[in-house]
Amino acid sequence: MTPRRLRLAALFLVPILAVGCGDTAREGSMEETTFDVADDTAPRVEYGMVIHGGAGTITRESMTPELEEQYRARMEEALRAGHAVLAGGGPALDAVEATLRILEDAELFNAGRGAVFTADGTNSLDASIMDGATLQAGAVAGVSTVRNPITLARYVMERSPHVMLSGTGAEQFAREQGIEVTPPEYFRTDRRWQQLQEAQEAERAAQAGGAGMASGKAPATWKYGTVGAAALDQAGNLAAGTTTGGMTNKKWGRIGDSPVIGAGTYANANCALSATGWGEYFIRNVVAYDICARAEYLGVPLPEAARQVIMEKLEAQEPETGGIIGLDREGRVVMAFNSQGMYRGWVDQDGNVTVAIYRDQ
Amino acid sequence: MTPRRLRLAALFLVPILAVGCGDTAREGSMEETTFDVADDTAPRVEYGMVIHGGAGTITRESMTPELEEQYRARMEEALRAGHAVLAGGGPALDAVEATLRILEDAELFNAGRGAVFTADGTNSLDASIMDGATLQAGAVAGVSTVRNPITLARYVMERSPHVMLSGTGAEQFAREQGIEVTPPEYFRTDRRWQQLQEAQEAERAAQAGGAGMASGKAPATWKYGTVGAAALDQAGNLAAGTTTGGMTNKKWGRIGDSPVIGAGTYANANCALSATGWGEYFIRNVVAYDICARAEYLGVPLPEAARQVIMEKLEAQEPETGGIIGLDREGRVVMAFNSQGMYRGWVDQDGNVTVAIYRDQ
Repeated sequence: MTPRRLRLAALFLVPILAVGCGDTAREGSMEETTFDVADDTAPRVEYGMVIHGGAGTITRESMTPELEEQYRARMEEALRAGHAVLAGGGPALDAVEATLRILEDAELFNAGRGAVFTADGTNSLDASIMDGATLQAGAVAGVSTVRNPITLARYVMERSPHVMLSGTGAEQFAREQGIEVTPPEYFRTDRRWQQLQEAQEAERAAQAGGAGMASGKAPATWKYGTVGAAALDQAGNLAAGTTTGGMTNKKWGRIGDSPVIGAGTYANANCALSATGWGEYFIRNVVAYDICARAEYLGVPLPEAARQVIMEKLEAQEPETGGIIGLDREGRVVMAFNSQGMYRGWVDQDGNVTVAIYRDQ
Repeated sequence: MTPRRLRLAALFLVPILAVGCGDTAREGSMEETTFDVADDTAPRVEYGMVIHGGAGTITRESMTPELEEQYRARMEEALRAGHAVLAGGGPALDAVEATLRILEDAELFNAGRGAVFTADGTNSLDASIMDGATLQAGAVAGVSTVRNPITLARYVMERSPHVMLSGTGAEQFAREQGIEVTPPEYFRTDRRWQQLQEAQEAERAAQAGGAGMASGKAPATWKYGTVGAAALDQAGNLAAGTTTGGMTNKKWGRIGDSPVIGAGTYANANCALSATGWGEYFIRNVVAYDICARAEYLGVPLPEAARQVIMEKLEAQEPETGGIIGLDREGRVVMAFNSQGMYRGWVDQDGNVTVAIYRDQ
């Protein structure tokens, strides 16, 4: 057959092959593989990193020029710290940790220093990190005295036989390992305290109106400010990490998606991803791993797999659920979100930094 | 083209299409789809359920006839309880909960009453449940006063806006909901206490020999006795749940795979799965969801997808990591394990019960 006839035959045979794959294949699943390679227009890096600083109702109207400048400057600083690691030949894992420590130390983001408050006026931080080269992972949930939870997550990965530690047990591990702890007051910022008051006021109003927490709906005052990073190093290895203060006014030791491997964070030889948004949806849909699985099993580029999950699957369940950033092993940059905005940025091998906040940058 | 020429052309085109699907497709991923439908010999049910009671080094030499009979009888009782729900037209979710409550109340299994001890001599129970029809899920980690953690997980799913609650916060939620609590002594069984002593003795010996916990290796005395269930109801809906006492001698608030949606438990419209084994490997590999994703995206039957993940992917990382049970929407029974044995059983629409323990039943 001529090349042209081959292509025609291929088009013709796609549905036949789809049926031949086995009878459990979901109807329409083959449809999802019909990705036109001409649409593969995601930015590419030889090596580099991508970050997010949370997704949500972020609009120009809700922002001052001064605050916007602070966000952009801190994201650039974080990206440059990660780039310095990568440019020096360091591993993706080190770049992710270095970048996220800067975002944790900034008051701006809902992680580390700027963590939101729980319903009882405390801070309860979650984080996870994963090394795509080894599939090793570490996560902590519900810590309140560790200055940099992302570093504690890395210690869990490298210095314990476990993946996930929680609560006072995780803090005991931190002390045994000599990780920097800090008085709980370190996390008490006026801005987040005010957000708690607003969330609790809204909750009281909702309850007075008959809509209890059991309604399954999030109060409108939830803030999404989780931070995350993904890196591809010069050796071609990938890593990802996510760190958060969780949800304003959270109760009952709630654990969101950030410390859940597969939901908020995932990395393997092909992909590295970090999510942000309404955690419950990201857990139920195993969002980070689902994107990796679609890329690998359906053979679509990672940015297209992210688009399918964030813009179609999640959006169909609940509007404005959040977003995800990442990289694949070919250096394709993933930045997908279905919310009004997402703090995000990436840096390429030459140190060129791009940061953005709104849908239109 | 004639049908015969079409088939020949199809064979010829498979590698071309595989490449055409996008260049991130992992080499060999197409190979995994070459499943011969003649190998689709898994048992099938119109409706029914499958359970496990843990996987591990379970051999006839390590078992007495009396103990074996107790295990088999209790598994049959649990399956019949679930079958009664399904035969009466009840939902898969109710069948899963009813079945797992019986296994939690039995001293035999590492869940509920028979939970193993943590390093500090307490019990810390984890559980999760997921409704495939709605993608709703609930999970609890680190509770110590709730008699039936699987019921608490269901309450989290249905009566809170969250998926995952932990520690004292989860217990506060349990009290607010009026769930049955019990003094911690309820979980203190002589057999599990003895196992803790053995595990700690082995740990001291290992540390004296220079192998600390940081080696990443599990002490040989770890016991796997997690229980789990999956059900397919008459309406064609699927559900799954898992409940456990975790790992003997666990430290630092360790959370295993059982309460992690995607790792130890997953259910959607196509699949329902519950895992048991070395939790850290199940988290890193997002085992339950990976099996669902392979079935859906690669178009292989769910039992074949389970075989790929348990017998090939996990086994390549670490021998005898554990197993998984489940059902797909066509009623195919999944029971895959790479360990010496796995307590397991299933019941079909007519109430025919099959239980097994060893590789050769």
